Amino acid sequence: MTSASVTDAALLEGDAPRVTLATVQAPVLEQLESVRDTMERVVTRDVPLLAVAARHLLAMKGKMFRPTLVLLSSAVGGSADGAVSVAAVVELIHLATLVHDDAVDHSMLRRGMPTLNSLFNDQTSVIMGDFLYSVALRELSVEDDMTPIRVLVDVSAQMSVGELRQLSTITPLDFSEEDYELLIRAKTASLISAACRLGAMRGAPEHARALAEYGDALGMVFQITDDLIDYTEVSETTGKPSGLDLREHKVTLPLIAALRTMQPAERRRVESLFEASEPSATAVTDVISIVTNSGGLDYARRRADEYAARARAALATVPAGAARDALEAAIFYVMERHA
Amino acid sequence: MTSASVTDAALLEGDAPRVTLATVQAPVLEQLESVRDTMERVVTRDVPLLAVAARHLLAMKGKMFRPTLVLLSSAVGGSADGAVSVAAVVELIHLATLVHDDAVDHSMLRRGMPTLNSLFNDQTSVIMGDFLYSVALRELSVEDDMTPIRVLVDVSAQMSVGELRQLSTITPLDFSEEDYELLIRAKTASLISAACRLGAMRGAPEHARALAEYGDALGMVFQITDDLIDYTEVSETTGKPSGLDLREHKVTLPLIAALRTMQPAERRRVESLFEASEPSATAVTDVISIVTNSGGLDYARRRADEYAARARAALATVPAGAARDALEAAIFYVMERHA
Repeated sequence: MTSASVTDAALLEGDAPRVTLATVQAPVLEQLESVRDTMERVVTRDVPLLAVAARHLLAMKGKMFRPTLVLLSSAVGGSADGAVSVAAVVELIHLATLVHDDAVDHSMLRRGMPTLNSLFNDQTSVIMGDFLYSVALRELSVEDDMTPIRVLVDVSAQMSVGELRQLSTITPLDFSEEDYELLIRAKTASLISAACRLGAMRGAPEHARALAEYGDALGMVFQITDDLIDYTEVSETTGKPSGLDLREHKVTLPLIAALRTMQPAERRRVESLFEASEPSATAVTDVISIVTNSGGLDYARRRADEYAARARAALATVPAGAARDALEAAIFYVMERHA
Repeated sequence: MTSASVTDAALLEGDAPRVTLATVQAPVLEQLESVRDTMERVVTRDVPLLAVAARHLLAMKGKMFRPTLVLLSSAVGGSADGAVSVAAVVELIHLATLVHDDAVDHSMLRRGMPTLNSLFNDQTSVIMGDFLYSVALRELSVEDDMTPIRVLVDVSAQMSVGELRQLSTITPLDFSEEDYELLIRAKTASLISAACRLGAMRGAPEHARALAEYGDALGMVFQITDDLIDYTEVSETTGKPSGLDLREHKVTLPLIAALRTMQPAERRRVESLFEASEPSATAVTDVISIVTNSGGLDYARRRADEYAARARAALATVPAGAARDALEAAIFYVMERHA
């Protein structure tokens, strides 16, 4: 039984078994090892001094989700072997953005491990992020095929633009669903789509377009699900959803949808949370209830389902096999994370 | 009388008239305008929202020293017209590093204007630096000639490595002259050398190697002079040298040289400054005197002169003309800045 038929069955029954990352990574396990070796070589080449920081970064490299997508997209053409360097570079660029995010947010933990800025300082983190980005691009710049570097500098520009749009939003409650989609496409889907496209170009160029579409839709599912989790996942310590986005005055899809249907009195409670520089836990819990009762979570789940269907449809023209099955399983993996 | 003969005469007389930036920029004034237009287009294309930040950045773009070198290095072959886009990209990459430096140092002023982080916040500055770097590289990535992007991602990696080396120095007083040269070559000379090399490749490829050597030596003069200024230039408010590097426990060439000849009692006073987390103004003034009396400033000036001679020698094979004269004048301009 392939993973695709597992997920098909699960979809019909409405009671999906959890798709684990191991299922998604199975077809490219060997190349994922090479990706890890490449990342280590790229990062430690110049600065033995910084071996501590580099090793720490690689230890927190996490789930290797983006390199997995690069490799699987290459493997639909038969082999993932040619995509190892691109996979390593995509993950290093992702790591660079995480390091900068942690530095500017002064975050102390990431994936359960101390962040670079907590181990060193914000200054070292900013420069370390620059370093990761530059050595990643340098790794690609020596290859004959310049498409990956073209695609990735464009995606990096999009990601920065997305972040800057978010940081420069003056009236968050006027944020439309269109604004939100533009934002998450720039911030999240652009790199995931590029991962799939560049993987395909190394092993299955005739499917690059379909896989770029798949990656775009998958990236949208990824971010909408992330934003839902902020409303739904109960913290172990408080027993309540974290509502971190609300506390930081970030408007995501559940709230955008809920604002359309909520009562004026409820809207005023939302506005008052957005006026408080440090909203109280009660205000956050209250707004989460309003959003839930106004159908905001349901709406966001429906949009995630629609993008998931679009991701599945994009795979239709891709040759059947273990790699395509794993890409299909990845959609379920993304939707089931945490939640 | 060409500027070269002005500077030759000045060198002989030991009483140089000030070489102004206008002298250096004269042969490429028209193309410098195009560089400014290109920078504005590259920066404002994606984020009209951020027009305020972008305009502010371009207003503080300063002396356009690096793009001037790109254009002059191209013009030694007859024309600077083909080097405009590379010149704009080099300056944008330089700006990106300044924005990150200001963000991590929490600097409030740069070139007499408020920094981006003082106008917005550190978060916006870090992402704005990423944005500048990515859009600069994207501008180059669409050209057929991939050499500039190869050279510039390599230089960017070197600059980050230099910064990281400096930030990770644990025992600054053990910093050798060799360590110092490695550091300033990575931090400063690499981009200035790349500016000259890439300019030459667009207009005078047969002189790319000589101009890269010129740029490397000029960059070393640039940074040694900068480090000297920290010991010599008297602040208008305090009437004393700023000694900022000493206050931040940064060891530069004057101190490295002075440490070789100073008395043990003097060395202990230096050590005590480096042990104080916030050295007193008196301690800073004291160490500046020790460095001066131990010949540290004279030694650094001699090294700057040697690199200046090397920069002049590298120009020997370059065709005579207004562009070469201006490149020669640039050496004097760099040495005479501020001091």
